[in-house]
Amino acid sequence: MDPRIREHAEIVADHSTGIEAGENVVIAMPKEAEELAVALHEVVGDRGANPVYLNNSERASRAFLRARADDSETETADGEREDERAFETPSHQLALYEESDVVVVARGGANVSEQSDVAPATTAAYRRAMQPVLKERLSKRWCLTQFPTSGHAQLAGMSTEAYENFVWDAVGLDWDAQREHQAEMVEILDGADEVRIRSGEETDVTMSIAGNTTLNDYGEKNLPGGEVFTAPVKHSVEGEVHFDMPLYRQGREIEGVRVRFEEGRVESYSAERNEDVLDGVFDTDDGARYLGELGIGMNRNIDQFTYNMLFDEKMGDTVHMAVGAAYEECVGEENEANESAEHVDMIVDMAEDSVIEVDGEVVQRDGTFVFEDGFE
Amino acid sequence: MDPRIREHAEIVADHSTGIEAGENVVIAMPKEAEELAVALHEVVGDRGANPVYLNNSERASRAFLRARADDSETETADGEREDERAFETPSHQLALYEESDVVVVARGGANVSEQSDVAPATTAAYRRAMQPVLKERLSKRWCLTQFPTSGHAQLAGMSTEAYENFVWDAVGLDWDAQREHQAEMVEILDGADEVRIRSGEETDVTMSIAGNTTLNDYGEKNLPGGEVFTAPVKHSVEGEVHFDMPLYRQGREIEGVRVRFEEGRVESYSAERNEDVLDGVFDTDDGARYLGELGIGMNRNIDQFTYNMLFDEKMGDTVHMAVGAAYEECVGEENEANESAEHVDMIVDMAEDSVIEVDGEVVQRDGTFVFEDGFE
Repeated sequence: MDPRIREHAEIVADHSTGIEAGENVVIAMPKEAEELAVALHEVVGDRGANPVYLNNSERASRAFLRARADDSETETADGEREDERAFETPSHQLALYEESDVVVVARGGANVSEQSDVAPATTAAYRRAMQPVLKERLSKRWCLTQFPTSGHAQLAGMSTEAYENFVWDAVGLDWDAQREHQAEMVEILDGADEVRIRSGEETDVTMSIAGNTTLNDYGEKNLPGGEVFTAPVKHSVEGEVHFDMPLYRQGREIEGVRVRFEEGRVESYSAERNEDVLDGVFDTDDGARYLGELGIGMNRNIDQFTYNMLFDEKMGDTVHMAVGAAYEECVGEENEANESAEHVDMIVDMAEDSVIEVDGEVVQRDGTFVFEDGFE
Repeated sequence: MDPRIREHAEIVADHSTGIEAGENVVIAMPKEAEELAVALHEVVGDRGANPVYLNNSERASRAFLRARADDSETETADGEREDERAFETPSHQLALYEESDVVVVARGGANVSEQSDVAPATTAAYRRAMQPVLKERLSKRWCLTQFPTSGHAQLAGMSTEAYENFVWDAVGLDWDAQREHQAEMVEILDGADEVRIRSGEETDVTMSIAGNTTLNDYGEKNLPGGEVFTAPVKHSVEGEVHFDMPLYRQGREIEGVRVRFEEGRVESYSAERNEDVLDGVFDTDDGARYLGELGIGMNRNIDQFTYNMLFDEKMGDTVHMAVGAAYEECVGEENEANESAEHVDMIVDMAEDSVIEVDGEVVQRDGTFVFEDGFE
């Protein structure tokens, strides 16, 4: 086993989640990531905790979702409602998470397009049914990380070995130093009111973050981490955004997303490619039409786009906004936390012709922060 | 996907477990069996049930068990007791099974020797901690089956393709016809008192089954099925048995097991190879020293030993006895059900120089039943 896999497992156990004796741990990852799961079982055993090992198989999920969708079609014939009836919250899975302390999820399937032939409406209906499970899982100490497989290397346009180096370099960062670097941006945002983001000809959006909390992500819930993030005040978002980085959703690449917000709500949208996947997202529930997160990437060690949100959104010259559920810990008592079964991050490249303004002050220009060398 | 995999999944869902809409299903198998898991997810989706998919990874279990054993050694130094302290019942896993209706487990790991370097005492301690989980699982509708992998083909001394044919032929039997065939033996045993089994020079054992129930296994809890089985009256077993078929336990082959029973209890034992694994079994708890099961193989379609108990114990000219836990449904109200964290089947080859007598009547001679052609 590559020694970096054991190091990865130790970072997850000690830095990201703090696994302790007697705790119940869920380890959920696809079979291609088994070596990381083996290393995690070793660490979990060493710390005196108890593992349950779920196989996050996209092939199995696809088979289930398609079969259930077919089934509902034969039973009913009244359009969208059929999907609502087709799924129920799996109470055994819910019970598993209720009794757990820590959840470790790794991506790393063989084929990122595995769910590309599941209808977006089916996925949306399934997500609605799974929302209580997701909510329970997110209430635990959790970590989402990546195992470098050939499928994800291919997505990034990299050799498998180069991608392994990329992933483990990103995972093995000096997280204390990263935390301090990011704290400078947290300080700017905490207590601030208006954030305005402009990029190129098409992006100019303004939102309030007044009363909400900005969190510093240094490799805990996401590994790699490397962003600061908060929640926009639900109805405050106004303007237009051109998300110029593609995103993968259900195995399909959505390109060139354009969204117009009015009083916080997505009033119109388009995509240059696979717009129907976006329809599925926005039709999931009303909360999917509002922003749940504003995130600012600050990890300079992630130096290229790999079409994987876990990495791309952390890049030092990007911002991302997520439609759907807000993180409750970001939302102040006076404000409404946006609720949704969705949480879909989309990225704006801020490297050129871009500024972030906070309460009228420019805090990032063309990807360089005000507290970094080279800011003009 | 080989069409026999989908047929296998349908037999599991419809014949073995009867999965219905709204039920919670646990699918637990190693990653090498993923195609069967995918087919099961399809069937589960089609039937309107809800899956959870556990990865039964022997590599991960081994890593966990060894790490925990090491850990306990550094913390304490008082011999056997350290193992007792080293494991606890994982309550999240227990909660998962409590909320489940059906559990499908498949064997099919890449390497049957994967746990060969886990200390038997560690495994025994782990089994004790897991007993409530096992008990919960066995209280559900469950099925144990096999996916034909190269590792198990190698164990059987067969090519992978020949082994695939062997497994799927056995799984796809006409289970209605098999049930009727076996019912003849159930009729003989039901209401009987004394069973005596003699084979060769070394096996001559007598036990009472009075008051206990004989069950007909036709591919439900075991797939393939093909045996009738009951529980011996706990303290009635007297005599000696030479289990002349090897068994695999924790990835190690135990050969030539000889056991002497007095008033039901194992008073002495030996093995020609890997006797220490047997020590771990018998030292698990006191119940591990008593028989929990007497089984009579009746499946004529399993025509060769493959060193896999799921198949070997069903062969038409074998009997098997399990030390450890009795199946509660076999034990009459007047009798005591043997309890144990163990259940270890061991086989006697009855093909030659062997008889089974029930209440003094010979019911099988040299592997041929009294109701079969060729019985003399």
